[in-house]
Amino acid sequence: MNLTHGLRRAAQINRDAVATGFEGRYRTWGEVAERVARAAGGLRGLGAAEGERVAILSLNSDLYLEAYLAAAWAGAVIVPLNVRWSAVENRDALEDCRAKVLIVDRAFAELGAEIAKAFPGMALVYADAGEPPAGMTAWETLATASDPIPDAMRKAEDLAGIFYTGGTTGRSKGVMLSHGNLTANAFNALAEGLFGVDVTYLHAAPMFHLANGAAMFSLLLSGGSNRMIRAFTPDGVLQAIQDEKITDALLVPTMIQMLVDHPKVGDYDLGSLRRIAYGASPISEAVLDRAMKALPGVEFAQAYGQTELSPIATVLHWKEHIGEGRAKGRHRSAGRATLGCEVRIVDAEDNPLPVGEVGEICVRGDVVMMGYWERPKETADALKGGWMHTGDGGYLDEDGFVYVVDRVKDMIITGGENVYSVEVENALAQHPAVAQAAVIGIPHEHWGEQVHAVVYAAPGATAAEAELIEHCRALIAHYKCPRSIEIRSEPLPLSGAGKILKRDLRAPFWSDAGRNVS
Amino acid sequence: MNLTHGLRRAAQINRDAVATGFEGRYRTWGEVAERVARAAGGLRGLGAAEGERVAILSLNSDLYLEAYLAAAWAGAVIVPLNVRWSAVENRDALEDCRAKVLIVDRAFAELGAEIAKAFPGMALVYADAGEPPAGMTAWETLATASDPIPDAMRKAEDLAGIFYTGGTTGRSKGVMLSHGNLTANAFNALAEGLFGVDVTYLHAAPMFHLANGAAMFSLLLSGGSNRMIRAFTPDGVLQAIQDEKITDALLVPTMIQMLVDHPKVGDYDLGSLRRIAYGASPISEAVLDRAMKALPGVEFAQAYGQTELSPIATVLHWKEHIGEGRAKGRHRSAGRATLGCEVRIVDAEDNPLPVGEVGEICVRGDVVMMGYWERPKETADALKGGWMHTGDGGYLDEDGFVYVVDRVKDMIITGGENVYSVEVENALAQHPAVAQAAVIGIPHEHWGEQVHAVVYAAPGATAAEAELIEHCRALIAHYKCPRSIEIRSEPLPLSGAGKILKRDLRAPFWSDAGRNVS
Repeated sequence: MNLTHGLRRAAQINRDAVATGFEGRYRTWGEVAERVARAAGGLRGLGAAEGERVAILSLNSDLYLEAYLAAAWAGAVIVPLNVRWSAVENRDALEDCRAKVLIVDRAFAELGAEIAKAFPGMALVYADAGEPPAGMTAWETLATASDPIPDAMRKAEDLAGIFYTGGTTGRSKGVMLSHGNLTANAFNALAEGLFGVDVTYLHAAPMFHLANGAAMFSLLLSGGSNRMIRAFTPDGVLQAIQDEKITDALLVPTMIQMLVDHPKVGDYDLGSLRRIAYGASPISEAVLDRAMKALPGVEFAQAYGQTELSPIATVLHWKEHIGEGRAKGRHRSAGRATLGCEVRIVDAEDNPLPVGEVGEICVRGDVVMMGYWERPKETADALKGGWMHTGDGGYLDEDGFVYVVDRVKDMIITGGENVYSVEVENALAQHPAVAQAAVIGIPHEHWGEQVHAVVYAAPGATAAEAELIEHCRALIAHYKCPRSIEIRSEPLPLSGAGKILKRDLRAPFWSDAGRNVS
Repeated sequence: MNLTHGLRRAAQINRDAVATGFEGRYRTWGEVAERVARAAGGLRGLGAAEGERVAILSLNSDLYLEAYLAAAWAGAVIVPLNVRWSAVENRDALEDCRAKVLIVDRAFAELGAEIAKAFPGMALVYADAGEPPAGMTAWETLATASDPIPDAMRKAEDLAGIFYTGGTTGRSKGVMLSHGNLTANAFNALAEGLFGVDVTYLHAAPMFHLANGAAMFSLLLSGGSNRMIRAFTPDGVLQAIQDEKITDALLVPTMIQMLVDHPKVGDYDLGSLRRIAYGASPISEAVLDRAMKALPGVEFAQAYGQTELSPIATVLHWKEHIGEGRAKGRHRSAGRATLGCEVRIVDAEDNPLPVGEVGEICVRGDVVMMGYWERPKETADALKGGWMHTGDGGYLDEDGFVYVVDRVKDMIITGGENVYSVEVENALAQHPAVAQAAVIGIPHEHWGEQVHAVVYAAPGATAAEAELIEHCRALIAHYKCPRSIEIRSEPLPLSGAGKILKRDLRAPFWSDAGRNVS
């Protein structure tokens, strides 16, 4: 099984159905299959031999999907770069993976040309409307004028892509995922009822990120239909849902929040929308409730995982967000292992822990990554005993629901007590003046770590440090409450996946030799 | 991914849910997991080391499911024997696979003891109620008194089972299926919406046969619930649906026919029934129509495949049986490739044929068998070019629907014309006096083969040979019509899978040196 299997099958069973739609341009699965076979030939001509890396730095588009498939068809390895990273970070990634080709869109053409100066042997491809800048080959030329090549027919165990992790807790590593990893995840999602044949899916979350990629690979298998917008904006999403009759989308909670709080949400016809999958970070109950009110009839499903898991480990279905499931508090969980995954919780010595006890969440199954690119030690650590060690802290209940309490690295140990930053952040978020809150551990002479919060005050709101601490004391135990709070008037820094970059917040407090958060 | 993955997962997420129900005995997934780990230890003690074969000759029961899982847990290889075979045929299979253990139920205890005399080193296990006969170990002892062993954690590429093919066209071969083959099929079925989490499934078709096994392995992954009856009887199925609130079952068309024609079908409460999957042979339109009338609200889905494909290659969904799908004639097709399968049609030289042209149906995907046990030549022939050559003749339409016209070996060549026996049988079946019809080629001096029919006359009906030939001439081309018809007052011989044994019908007409139907 490989990533191009779905394209071959879709070209047979769904030849005339719309595969992709982007800015008014629609292509059928038959057309996409033809273009991909040609583009693969073109990529080969630019040096993308089997196993070589093809990087892409681009906002969302229909061509992004073609690039994923053409690289796979050529037997090459796709490397989707993070559009929110700095030039330095992406140059590091290109150097790390030794890419033969870099594909850019209009937004990244200038930056790509600049970065490429450091890599004289790397070909540049322009995948967007209009003439390519000097020195770049047009994707359109590759996809229409190259000779088509036969599918390289990669095997399940062959490397399909290198995905540099968001790096919320240290220097980025290249996660190696095989064709088998990515198709296993696609099947897990399909078997859970997500991204099936009748779906018209909106790529609003960034396509470089596997949270969105999971949907893309499932849709390839099911022959569902893809629509893209360049990047998330609340207006853009609402307009696309109405115009393209979108049925499904995957969004991160910060996007859902912006969407449902949008003043014009009621002005659009969103009647086609059936399901929003969310992930990348938990959703607060307040946002979920507002979302359910703003989008009646839409079912929400949470997927929990990480890039190293291709990326889904557990799914929380809609029925657990309401009724009996909610009454049991299951809406606060990350759901249960997908059909192809097993979950267990271990202590620091890798011993399995019983139900209810907090430890590190570990996952086993065909979705577990091959390893980190050229990092055997980190790979061995992460895959100890055949289980992926997620770095997330959590526990299982007696029905197998997984409760994520925190990143293991975000847990704060103060005076010998564990404090889960998420719990403190949830308490802070309930104060009306708090728009965003991040809780970190900072050095403390006596307690080891001290609970410290960084808060972005809601526009127009004012809040004093003492008042917020008092607010927390009414909700959670004394030792969990922040001892110090920094109140900012600017939003907190976010990763490409929409997570608050605690690494950046922590940095001023810790020397390099200090807290190990890599 | 391996077969025991689903058991480990079900024991975590569905521990207290009913896993199996049989003759008033119900066990949870937690209990089954405990019993399987012990029974695996017991099987090891009887000689079932990793890779060794454990055969089972038994009607359906909850213990049959445990045997499948315990063999996998021990790292052994299950060999489900055909309950309709003669003692000689099953002795051949046991000799061929060199089984270390033979598991029998009450119905086969005597036969098993007799057969076992030829295999002094083979242990006998009695898996049924009551005391085991002399010389046999009770399954109950293995499952409760043995020490549990850890899961052997077989890999996807490891051999899971040897399934001797029904042998409608020659001597039986052992189809080797890996853990990966069987779990890939389970995922394909789940991704098609079959055998999911909320299913209570009736094992009425024989559990030795993979048509039923496909459902079993999907249910293991989804944590659905299993109910068994020892063997199919129309009364038994109707009673079980009512008593056990069955939602799903897999039946072969001959079973569906018996069910819907049962005089008391209206006396049972069948309201829980949601879906009947059918397969193993096509269903006639007349039977389908009667089934839809007798079971309103029940959706039918056809699965087409063969043991060598673990076993499903294509699925025809309910919507193609009705409305627009039916108007397009798609209900006469076998549906489209499952999400994990590709289908193509080739000529005798293995060249792919265009849409609409009849050739041999070939299938590619993770479900394709490892090969035939100790038959490298037959394996190489069957898997030529990486595609499973099904031996079935058929064609594709422009939407990827597969139309099976006949077994390649059942096609009759008469005077240079191809005659598809299925087409002639369908014509015969429309005559009210015909209960069953089989059409075969018999030797003819001038034409090579002559079209010959064997008909089982409906009880109480009479039909003359000339009248039936006349009836066919009104429906199909002259050269396709039978030249000779044998009319029987007894049902035609059936294989374990419910297919008419044409091999037996053909035998009297052909010398060993004649038509090659092996």
